[in-house]
Amino acid sequence: MNIYRANILHTPTPEAFQIIERGYVCVTDDGLVEGLYASLPEQYRHLPVTDFGDRLLIPAFNDLHVHAPQYRNLGLALDEELLPWLEKYTFPEEAKFVDKAYAERIYRRFVHELWMQGTMRSSVFATVHPEATVLLMSLFREAGMGAYVGLVAMDRNCPVSLRNAPCDVRRFYEEVSSAAAEGAVGLSSKVRLILTPRFIPSCTPEMLTELGELAHGLRLPVQSHLSENRSEIDWVRQLEPESSCYADAYLRYGLLGATPTLMAHCCYSAGEELRLLKENNVTVVHCPTSNSNLASGIAPVRMFLDSGISVALGTDISAGHNLSMLRVMQYAVQVSKLHYARSGGKVPYLTLSEVFWLATKAGGSFFGRVGSFESGYEFDALVVDDSYLNYDRYSLEHRIQRYVYLGDDRDIRVRFCCGVQLPEPPF
Amino acid sequence: MNIYRANILHTPTPEAFQIIERGYVCVTDDGLVEGLYASLPEQYRHLPVTDFGDRLLIPAFNDLHVHAPQYRNLGLALDEELLPWLEKYTFPEEAKFVDKAYAERIYRRFVHELWMQGTMRSSVFATVHPEATVLLMSLFREAGMGAYVGLVAMDRNCPVSLRNAPCDVRRFYEEVSSAAAEGAVGLSSKVRLILTPRFIPSCTPEMLTELGELAHGLRLPVQSHLSENRSEIDWVRQLEPESSCYADAYLRYGLLGATPTLMAHCCYSAGEELRLLKENNVTVVHCPTSNSNLASGIAPVRMFLDSGISVALGTDISAGHNLSMLRVMQYAVQVSKLHYARSGGKVPYLTLSEVFWLATKAGGSFFGRVGSFESGYEFDALVVDDSYLNYDRYSLEHRIQRYVYLGDDRDIRVRFCCGVQLPEPPF
Repeated sequence: MNIYRANILHTPTPEAFQIIERGYVCVTDDGLVEGLYASLPEQYRHLPVTDFGDRLLIPAFNDLHVHAPQYRNLGLALDEELLPWLEKYTFPEEAKFVDKAYAERIYRRFVHELWMQGTMRSSVFATVHPEATVLLMSLFREAGMGAYVGLVAMDRNCPVSLRNAPCDVRRFYEEVSSAAAEGAVGLSSKVRLILTPRFIPSCTPEMLTELGELAHGLRLPVQSHLSENRSEIDWVRQLEPESSCYADAYLRYGLLGATPTLMAHCCYSAGEELRLLKENNVTVVHCPTSNSNLASGIAPVRMFLDSGISVALGTDISAGHNLSMLRVMQYAVQVSKLHYARSGGKVPYLTLSEVFWLATKAGGSFFGRVGSFESGYEFDALVVDDSYLNYDRYSLEHRIQRYVYLGDDRDIRVRFCCGVQLPEPPF
Repeated sequence: MNIYRANILHTPTPEAFQIIERGYVCVTDDGLVEGLYASLPEQYRHLPVTDFGDRLLIPAFNDLHVHAPQYRNLGLALDEELLPWLEKYTFPEEAKFVDKAYAERIYRRFVHELWMQGTMRSSVFATVHPEATVLLMSLFREAGMGAYVGLVAMDRNCPVSLRNAPCDVRRFYEEVSSAAAEGAVGLSSKVRLILTPRFIPSCTPEMLTELGELAHGLRLPVQSHLSENRSEIDWVRQLEPESSCYADAYLRYGLLGATPTLMAHCCYSAGEELRLLKENNVTVVHCPTSNSNLASGIAPVRMFLDSGISVALGTDISAGHNLSMLRVMQYAVQVSKLHYARSGGKVPYLTLSEVFWLATKAGGSFFGRVGSFESGYEFDALVVDDSYLNYDRYSLEHRIQRYVYLGDDRDIRVRFCCGVQLPEPPF
C-alpha cells in the first residue's frame, strides 16, 4: 500500500468538485485507489506517508482524439482553410512517417509532451505506416502511459503515398494482435489497438467492410471523425446515398458501436444521428480548440449530455493548436458560452466541474476505471504546485479554478499512471 | 545610437509580417527606431552591435482595455453570470483598494505581470480611489512602462462604498494634472491620465456631464464600455431614452470622440452606432477572451475594419482570464472563425498577421508612434527565445505562428520600452 497526502480534488460527478483538504489517498500495490480519507484510518497509521504538502492532487488527463504525426505542425498554417491545410501541410507531414527514424524523432517528442501536459491516457491516430505505428506503441509502453493507437486506414481521396489497402490493414491488425498475445510487440494492458478509418470520404466501401469485419472478429474498438463541418457532411451524403445520415454510414459497415466507439467532433449531429449515437453507445469526442481553429462550428455538447450520450474531450492536434487538456477544458466552457449567448440564454453553458469531469472521469471511462479517485479506480494522478498562483490564501475551490484557467505544464511536479510514478521520457 | 541584431518580425500593415532574417535595428539615444537593415550601413559599421543570435525580435504588445484591481480575481468565478460575478466578486474586490497597502501589493503584482507578458503599454481602469490610482501611476513610471490610467467614475447602480461624486472626480483629474505639470506625482511622458466612466448605467447624467466638461477642458482622452451584451443595451435604452443608440448616449455628454476615445467590446454595435464610431474616430477595443468568458458574444471586427473603424485588442481581466496578449490574438482569430462558420463562410476571418498588427501597431497608435519598427517609431520590443519550439528548422514565418499559438511569457528574454531595456519590476 502507498499512501499520499495532499489537497485532493476530483469530480466523481459532473456537478461539483469533491475536495479533501490535506487528505490521504491509499493506493494498492496494483495501482488501484483503495480509498480517500480526511484523516488516516487506524490500520494504516503505521505505514509511511508521502506528503505533497500544500500541493494539489488531481486526476491525470485523458485526451480522446489526437493525431500523433501532426505534432511537428503544431501552430502552423492556421490561417489556411481545411483543404489547403490538409494538402499543403498535413498530408505531406504524415507521408514522412514512412521513414522510421523520422517517426521516432517526432513520436518521442509527442509522447514526451503528453507526459509534460499530464495526459496519461490518449486515443491516437498514427499514420498508414505499420512500422512507425508499432514504434509509437512501444514508446507509450516504455513511458508507462496508456493509449489506444490506430493505424490510419485510407484508400481514396488522399495522396497515393498515404493510401493503404484493406488487406494491408487486416494484416497489420491481425499480426500485431497475435504478436501482442505472445508479448513480442509494444502492447501492454495499457497500450492497445484501435481501428482507425480516417473518415468516410477517405475509405472505400471495401475498406469500411474490412474494418467492420475486423472490429467484429478481433473485438477491437473504433475511432473516427463524424460531422465535423457542413461541406464534409454534404460530401458523405454524395458518397453514401443509402445512409440516412453520416453516422448511419459507419453503422452500416459495423463501425458504430459494434465495439466501443469514439467519434470526434459531431458539430452538426442532430435528429436521427443523435438517436444513433445514443443507441449505439458512441462516445462523442468534443475538440473545441480544433473546431475553433478550423472554423468548424460549436458542437452541441449540452444536448449530447442531456440526451445521455457519452462525451469526452480531445486536443485534436494539429487542428487543435496544443496538447494541453487544461486549455481544451477552458475552450469547452468558452465555446459553450458563445453557444449560450447565441441561443439567447436558452442552452446552459458548461461549468468548470463539468469540463473537468469530461477531461478526467468521462474520458477515462474509455480505458476502464480511470479518471477519478473513487475506490477501485486506477491511480492516474498529477501533483500540482500552484504556489505562484496562490499568493493570497485562495480557497481550494478557487485554486482549482485558477489552475485550470491560468496554470500550465510547468506546474505539474509528479505524474502517476496506474499507481506508478512516471519519470520524464527521453526525447 | 544602439544597434541590435536578431530575426526581426513586425507588421507595418495588417496583410503580412515583414521579416528580416538576422537583420539590424538602429535605435537613437531618444529610443526611436532609426531604421531596419538586412546588412548594416557603412556609417554604422564602427559601432558595437548587441547580437541576440537566432532569437526573434518583435514589437512589444499593447493592451487597450484592462482592469488592474481585478488582478487578484483572475480565473475566479467564471461559472457565474455577469451580475452575480460583479456583485459577489468584482465589486467587493475593487472596494478593497481604499486600503493603500492592499492596493500596492496587488498593483505591484499586476505591473510585474504586464512586464512578464511583454505588454509595454496599456490603458487601465483603476478604481474610484484617488490614492491607489496615483500609486498605480507611480508603479508604471518606476517600471518604465507606458500607460493611460483612469480613476473609475461611478455614482449609481453599484455599492455605496464604490461611488464617487462628480466633484471628487473633477478634483482628482484637476489636481493630478496640475501636480503632474509640476512633476509632483507619478505621471511622465509615458504615464498619463484618461477619463474613465465605468459605463452609462453606473454614471448619473451629472457625472457624465462633468466628465464631458473635463474631457473638453483638460483635453483628456476617454475610455469606457459599449454594447457588451444585450441586456446592458436594453438597460441603457431605458436610462437614456433620448439617445438614438448606446454610443449616442456617450456622444451627447461629449464623451465620444471629442478627445481620443476607447470603447471596449462593441459586440452588438451596428447601423447608427457604427456610423457614430467611425465619424468620431473611436477606437473599438476587442476583448475576445472576456466576450467568451462572460458569454457576451462575438464582436463584428471584420465589419469594423472594413468600415474604416480603428480596432485594438484588450485582455479585459478579470473577465478575460489572463494578461497574455498572445492568447488574446489567438482568441481573436478563433472567435472570428466561429463567426465565419456561422455566416456560412461569408465574413472572412481574421488572419494571424492581422491580429498581430492589432496587438502591436493598431493598439500602439493610441500612444503615439508605437507598435512597429518603422523609422521614427518608439522602440518597444521583445526578444523571444523560441528555441524549444524550433527543434526542426522552421521558417521564420512558421516560427512566429508557433510562437503566437504555443509560446508564452517564459520565452521573452528582453523587454524594451521606448528604447530602454526594462529590468524586472519588484513585487
